[in-house]
Parts: sequence; C-alpha cells; structure tokens
Amino acid sequence: MSSERLIYLPLGGAGEIGMNAYVYGYGAPDKERLIVVDLGVTFPDMDGSPGVDLIFPDITWLEERKDQIEGIFITHAHEDHVGAVGLLWERLGAPIYARTFTANIATRKLSEKHLPEGIVRTVGAYPSVTKCGPFTVSVVPMSHSIPESGGLLIETPTERVFHSGDFKIDKTPVVGEPFDEDMLSEIAKGGIKALVCDSTNVFSEHAGRSEAELAKPLQALIEEQKGMVVATTFASNIARLKTLAVAAQNAGRSICLLGRAMRRMVEAGIETGILSDFPSVISPEDAASIPRENVMLLVTGSQGERRAASAQLSQGKYLGLSLKEGDTFIFSSKTIPGNERGVIRIMNALSEKGVEVIDDRGGLYHVSGHANRPDLKKLHQIMQPQMLIPMHGEHRHLREHVKLGAESGITGVIAVNGTMVNLSANRPEVCGYVETGRTYLDGSVQIGALDGIVRDRIRMALNGHVTATLIVDEHDEPLGDPWCELMGLPEMGRNNAPLVDVLEEDLSQFINRADDKTLLDDDELETQLRRIIRNSCQNEIGKKPEVTIIISRLN
Amino acid sequence: MSSERLIYLPLGGAGEIGMNAYVYGYGAPDKERLIVVDLGVTFPDMDGSPGVDLIFPDITWLEERKDQIEGIFITHAHEDHVGAVGLLWERLGAPIYARTFTANIATRKLSEKHLPEGIVRTVGAYPSVTKCGPFTVSVVPMSHSIPESGGLLIETPTERVFHSGDFKIDKTPVVGEPFDEDMLSEIAKGGIKALVCDSTNVFSEHAGRSEAELAKPLQALIEEQKGMVVATTFASNIARLKTLAVAAQNAGRSICLLGRAMRRMVEAGIETGILSDFPSVISPEDAASIPRENVMLLVTGSQGERRAASAQLSQGKYLGLSLKEGDTFIFSSKTIPGNERGVIRIMNALSEKGVEVIDDRGGLYHVSGHANRPDLKKLHQIMQPQMLIPMHGEHRHLREHVKLGAESGITGVIAVNGTMVNLSANRPEVCGYVETGRTYLDGSVQIGALDGIVRDRIRMALNGHVTATLIVDEHDEPLGDPWCELMGLPEMGRNNAPLVDVLEEDLSQFINRADDKTLLDDDELETQLRRIIRNSCQNEIGKKPEVTIIISRLN
Repeated sequence: MSSERLIYLPLGGAGEIGMNAYVYGYGAPDKERLIVVDLGVTFPDMDGSPGVDLIFPDITWLEERKDQIEGIFITHAHEDHVGAVGLLWERLGAPIYARTFTANIATRKLSEKHLPEGIVRTVGAYPSVTKCGPFTVSVVPMSHSIPESGGLLIETPTERVFHSGDFKIDKTPVVGEPFDEDMLSEIAKGGIKALVCDSTNVFSEHAGRSEAELAKPLQALIEEQKGMVVATTFASNIARLKTLAVAAQNAGRSICLLGRAMRRMVEAGIETGILSDFPSVISPEDAASIPRENVMLLVTGSQGERRAASAQLSQGKYLGLSLKEGDTFIFSSKTIPGNERGVIRIMNALSEKGVEVIDDRGGLYHVSGHANRPDLKKLHQIMQPQMLIPMHGEHRHLREHVKLGAESGITGVIAVNGTMVNLSANRPEVCGYVETGRTYLDGSVQIGALDGIVRDRIRMALNGHVTATLIVDEHDEPLGDPWCELMGLPEMGRNNAPLVDVLEEDLSQFINRADDKTLLDDDELETQLRRIIRNSCQNEIGKKPEVTIIISRLN
Repeated sequence: MSSERLIYLPLGGAGEIGMNAYVYGYGAPDKERLIVVDLGVTFPDMDGSPGVDLIFPDITWLEERKDQIEGIFITHAHEDHVGAVGLLWERLGAPIYARTFTANIATRKLSEKHLPEGIVRTVGAYPSVTKCGPFTVSVVPMSHSIPESGGLLIETPTERVFHSGDFKIDKTPVVGEPFDEDMLSEIAKGGIKALVCDSTNVFSEHAGRSEAELAKPLQALIEEQKGMVVATTFASNIARLKTLAVAAQNAGRSICLLGRAMRRMVEAGIETGILSDFPSVISPEDAASIPRENVMLLVTGSQGERRAASAQLSQGKYLGLSLKEGDTFIFSSKTIPGNERGVIRIMNALSEKGVEVIDDRGGLYHVSGHANRPDLKKLHQIMQPQMLIPMHGEHRHLREHVKLGAESGITGVIAVNGTMVNLSANRPEVCGYVETGRTYLDGSVQIGALDGIVRDRIRMALNGHVTATLIVDEHDEPLGDPWCELMGLPEMGRNNAPLVDVLEEDLSQFINRADDKTLLDDDELETQLRRIIRNSCQNEIGKKPEVTIIISRLN
C-alpha cells in the first residue's frame, strides 16, 4: 500500500451549524497537500459572546501549514460559507476558487479588507475541473436557495470524494440549476469513496418542497392585501428574493429593497447575470410617494437583528417609510433557534402598530434550502458512497445522519471539528485530533474564544463590577481610606444603607487593622480587599461582583 | 346611573406571557375596593436581564392603594401566577384565597420568606363563594396542566365577570377536574358582562388534544427502550408528571424524581390528596443500584436551565447517576421561545454521550395546557359575554384574540399592562392608564427594571470596562501618571502594543498638558479622561468601553 492518504478534517461546521471550514489533504502523513473548502462565519449572541461582532473558525492548524495549502474552494455565497474570507485570507494566502456569482461576493469581501485583486479565480461548473496540487476538483451544481451552490467532486490519484455543500433536492429552484439526478448518477459511476454530506434537516421527516411552490400562495396573499406589504427573508436567500419580487410584481406592486446586505446581493446577482430577470426596483423615496397598495418592501432582518430594516420599521420611520394599521408584514423565513426573542419582539411591535403579521406557521410561505431526511437518503442512494461523513450539523444531526446512512448500508462516522478522518482506509478511520476552536472579531481585533476576555464580560453582566482604590504613602502607610465605585449594582443594600458606604467602611476597618507585612504586600492586600468586597456584597445584596483593585504606592 | 363602576387593570401578563397580575376594582372612581388576581413571576434572560434572578410586576400602584385591597386570589399554582406571593405579599397585606393545592404551594412560598401563618385561606370550588368587600368570588374548576386551575366568577352588585385563568378544553385531563361545559353554561345563564380570557394559544389552529392521549404513546415508547429512560417536563406540569410516571410504571420501571421543584410539587400533590395515586418513587441511590432498564428518571430542566437536573445529567454524574450509550432522554415539553439555545445545548451534550434524544417533533409526547383557537371560540360561545378582554398573551396574541372574538360577534379590546378598562360601560371603555413595569429580584435586592443597573451590566458585557485612576497632590499637581485597568477587553491593540500602555500614555500626555483650571475641576477631568479612553479604544480595538474614573486628591 502507498503511504499516501486522503484525509478529511473539519475545522468548523461539524458539531454546529455555521462557520463552515473543511480541509482535505492528500500525501504522506503530516506532509499532505491541502485544500480548504469554505471559510464561513457564525453569529454571536448575548448568552455566549456578548459584544462580539462575528465568529469564525480558529485556523491556527492551517496557518501553521500555510505552505501546504493549494487552494481554497468556496461552495456558495452564504455567510456561513464565504463570510470569513476577508478576515482570514491573509493568514492562508492561497488562491480562492469559486463560480461566477460566488466569486463576485468573495471578491467584494476581500476588497472591503483592501486585499489585492486577483486572489479569486472564477471556475466553471462540472465537468470543468480545477487542478490543485494532487487534487482535481470540480464544482457540481446542486440546488439550494442561492444560485451556483456547488457540491465538490474531489479526485486524488487514489480516491474520489463528493462534498455535497449545502443542497436540497429541487427540480424547480427558481434560481440556479435544478437538482440533476442523472449527472450525479453519472459521477457516482466512477465510484465514490466518501460522501461528505449536509446534515441540517436530517430530522425533517417529509420530503422537501420546491421553491417554485411558493409562487402562487405568495401572490395570492399579496393580492389580498389592501395596504403596504413588507416581506422579509435572509438577504442571501436569492431564490426567495426573486420569488417574493415576482409575486409582488404579478400582484401589481413595485418592489423596494431595504437593507444593505439585500441590495448588495441583488446587485451582485444582476452584475453576474444570474438575476437578469429580477423585477425592477424603486427607491425608498419613490416607495414613499406612490399609493401604499402599490408597494412591496423587501427587507432585511428576518432573524430579528436589532439594527436591520425589519426592526427599524417595527420601531418607527425608516428611510421615510413607516407602517400603520392595514399594512401587512410577511416573514418568509424560518426563525433560527436562538433568534426567537428578537423576532417576537418585532412581531409585537408591529402588532402594536396594527400591522398584520404573517409568519410561516402554515408552511405556505417558506420552504427550507436544505435536504430533508428522505432527500438525504436519496442522495446516499444516488451516490452510493463507500462511507458517509455527515457535516453541516450539530452533534445530534451528525449522529442521526450516520444512523440514516446505515439504513442504506453505508458506514458512517461522526467527525466533529478537529477530528481527522483517513478516507483512504476501507472504512472511515479517525486518524488524529487537532485543536480547534472559535475566533472572535471583537470590534476591530481578532481574539480567541477562550482568551477569557468575553468570559470576563459575561461575569460583569451577571455579577456587576466594583472598583476599589487604595493609596499607600512613602512610609507604607495607607493614605486616607479606600474608595469604591460600583457599576451594575444596586445602590442600596439590605439595611437600606448605600452599598458603597458599607463597602468602604468594611475596607477601612480591614486596612486600619492590617499589619505592616500585609500593607507591604500588594498581592496579599489585593486578595484581602477583593475577598472583603465580595463577602460584603454577598451579605448586603446577595451577589458577588467582579472586582478591580488598584493600589497606588507613592514611594 | 350609579357612580360606582367595575374596573379591570392588568399589571402583568397582558402584552407578555408571564408574571400575571390583574386587578379588579368596584366603587366610585379612585375609591374602588380592589381584588388582585394572581401574583406571578417571569424568568430573566441574558439578552435583557443578565444576572437577575426573577422578574415580577411593579406593584407600586397597588401598594399606594393598600387600604383598598380586599383580597388576593390565586388561580393556580404555576410560577407565572403564584411565584411572586412571597416576594410581594408584605407590600399588599391582604388575605390570599386559593383552593387546597394552590394554597399549599402559596403557603410554602410565604413560609420561605418567614411570613406569618394564616395569610392563605383555603376556599372551595364553585358554587362555593368568597365574599370580599363588594365582590363575591367563586373559583370555577377549569382543566389545565395542574390540578385546581380555576377560572374566577367575579360578581359585584351590578356586573358578573368571568376571568378564565389558564385553561384548556380537556374532558380527561389526568389530574384536576375535567372541562365542564354544563357548569359553565349554567354560569353564563346569569349573564356575563366580560370574559377576561387566556390568549396563549390563539395562533394554534387545531382543537387541543387531551392529556390522556399521551398515555399510550408514552408507554409504548418507554417499553421499547433498553437502557435507562429519562423524561423531563415542567416541574409544575403535575398532569404530565403523572402521565409519565404511570406510563413508566406500566412499562415495568421504577420512578425516581430529580430536581427540587419537581419533588416539592409531587410532595404538595400527595400532601393535599390530589396525587394520592401517584406511583411510588425511589431515591437516586436506589435508582443507581437497580438495572438501568428498570428505571425512569423524571427530571427538571425541560427549558435548558443551566443548573437543573437535565443539564447536570447531560454534563456528567448527578447524584450518583449518569447516562450512557443506549439510554433515552424524552423531552415531554415544548421549548418556550427564547429557551431554544439552552435546550439544544443539552440535546447535543446528550448526543455526545450516545443518548437517544426524543423530543416532541411528532406531537406524540406533549400536549399544551392552553386552549387553542377553536377552543377559545368555544368558550366565547359558551359564556356569551358582552365584551371580551384578552389576557395572558403578548400584544400579537391579544390582537388576534380580539379578532377571534369578533367572529362570534363579541366586542373586545386590547388592554395591555397598565390599561384600565371600565367594565360597567356598554362596551369595553378604556378609562385610564397606570404606570406599570417590571421589578427585578437581583440577588437579594428588589430593583426596578429601569433603574439603570442592569443597563450598565449589559453595557459592560457589550463594551468591556476600563478603570483609570489619577492622584492629585496637595498642590493640585498630578502625582505620577494615570493608571488603567481593563476588564473584558483585548490585551493588544491594532499596533500590537498592549492596550493598557497606549491608554496610559494617552492619558499622561493629556495630564501633562492640562492647565491648572482643568486639574482643579474633577468633573472636567473625569469627562476628558473618559473621552480620551473611549476614543483611544475605538482607534485601537474598534470598541468604546464603559469607563470608571477615580480621581484621588491628597489635599
């Protein structure tokens, strides 16, 4: 047997939904030539990452092997697949390959970061191939909610692997190529060693529905409305943007796009020719000046994002437009778990304005972009891989997907981020573990999720913060009494005395009794002052705050 | 016409789901005698109320009218109806009326706060009545997920009102009295001026299902399992606890309760005789010592609460019990919007242990405790009220419920917290607005939601915190350089210099250039130092932190 091998290593996206980043390597162990598939982001939340702007995979492992990287392939232009290219490219330095529209979006992200031109190389679809070191890669059109979503046929001298990308089985996907079973069967004829497969909807029991099914219900809904109609969906759900825009046009309404991300997506679509038949749009000024029954706004913020157009419209005037009794707001989207509170906040704010809110409760106005359980099974059976590696899912999705594969006699393995799998073996063989994690974009700085920075912020949010200062004079004697400042804590304690007074009194008592040795020892002083503050607070207000102690010595 | 009138005033629960507290008043305007219906809590979250322990209504309005309060009625023993009695009773001081089981729970809450005995008075069910000033109140058994859930028939000299409480239409509710249409029709014969009605499930299109329908599917599911079975639901969903326990018993398993809230509920149920036929339970020690296929754990934490039994079991050993490959975990519950992240975290942790997770995706293992849309309509038609006041719902629920009432020709009004409605008028007439809000239990202290304390904590979580100290000597000259301490901020700024060094340098430069007037003016100094810190941070790390400035003057 050759010592060369093909490995698979997820750095993001396996064990979570979001921040996709997968590595394939071919060669002798530790000398593999590498390709990267996708560099995506995921979004922060107040629970775990307050104040963070974006989250993406820790690529330290890749960066240490920069010389081994042959190329970066982007399967499609959704943020969880392309969102981190601008942030991470410099640390990897390899060319980026993508089809036209995806390349357009990737290029925009690089130029935002002032990176040079020429990094992104546009490739054609299967059977066109890209040679990349020992890899021959072909982007295989798969139907999804954005055009040009691609699976990757990855060929090495010894194995053929199919990386599904995000996909659904849709013969009429409105934008992008329809699902092409014949083409995939033809690809499968050459033998597929491993199918690395989207797991998002493995728990959805029924076969997926086509995007095209939404056209009539949406048009009928819009036709019924008497006032202004607003519809929201993911900005990057190009298929839905078109479905909604066409439905509105057919219902006699002009379309106005609100939200930068949405305008940019449509712009890129038109620029690359894939949205050449998108209805023409009007400006917010024009939308405000024509009768409201002739307008449909297409807006960002379907996930309840605080600053997006949906939230703004629910609060008041936005770009000269405002909603009122008799208007209708359509959520043509699924709320991602964790975003419910934000979405509900908007729905209630709209309700207070008398706006009719339509969501997808009945399943009429939204379909998923991912393959459901029966559709996944179908792909398994079309591709007939020797092994199945579920990706793009939380642990529970990966686990269920392995079980689903077993129903078709395919051996699978749960490989979460950092798990290296040898795809050259006869069955999926875990051949190593790599340290992985999350990097945060925090303001303008990249920090590690485990650096303790965000942990401290969470602790301040839960416990409040006390600063105490002590001045020690040239003779190592306390100068005056310690001072305290509180932030995020109640002013009054249990005995209705100001908490700050109680703390300062407790600290003074300690300082006045402290011996010379303690007063000379900054660490000991700090420990004791912190302990006193935390205990006094526990006693007074039932909370132990975070504490900053500042000892100033005048000597 | 008499100058006496009957008013309705929600202080909590109308415009939100949670912290129910409703006031009825009868008498001349501003001189009304009052009764309070429910004193509930709602639960904090990291987004809006980090570090807070419990949330309950601001009862300032009531407290100012303490002398006018005749009594407090608790409709049932769920936390969102009874949870605040211990925290608020002293400020109101009136007797609490409830049926046996509810009274047992209310009494426990009062005695936890060391309040005297005798506050809670046990009342019988309709047709038994309680005279309370001008009110005659009768607790009307309604089916719900907890026994003794009561509607209230509230009679004054001039009007009869029906306050539905939480209810569903269930003829076989497992615990508590079945829905009794005949009794309600009889009550309605006397004429109902207003129906004040639960709105929780107004968006659920299909008629509700009975608790009893779960028995067979759950038993079949449990019988199929080979390892340990764990089931979780709300601790206070007594009906479900019984359904689950009986199903497990029939499947040949012993039941072990984990979680204080659950043990307490079952204990109260047994004590009051309403759970006399609950299967006997075994201790965690016994559960650990018998074969795992003979055990079912019934555990708290169905909403993903971090410290509850479900979370603990998903993480490792809990009270000597641990889960492993081959075990099964059943979520016999609905995830309340906003709690998804916590629940999913537990599901994935269980998946990592190889535990099979069953949730209610198929609708087989959970039914709601609230009336669905057709059931609400049915109650409207049974009670035939002159007016409908939706409660127990967010704004969108109240709005939809008014529309539903209109389908039966009933005039409704959206009355959110603080809206006073005159129920003596011919149609629901808003006759005033009262300031309402939320009070937080924060550690051991009650604080107002708008006091700014929690706002500061949120800001620290989003922006981090900087403390800067400056010492000014006896001659009003700076003594040494300003010091900074950071919390929750990156150590390094854009130029790879320590952020703290950059800040201290910027502050020093300012101090060295500052004129005497500035150095004498604490406010001005503080303003300038804060501004410099925030601007430097924006420049270095792209964030403006919260800042505490401490100026120590030695004179």
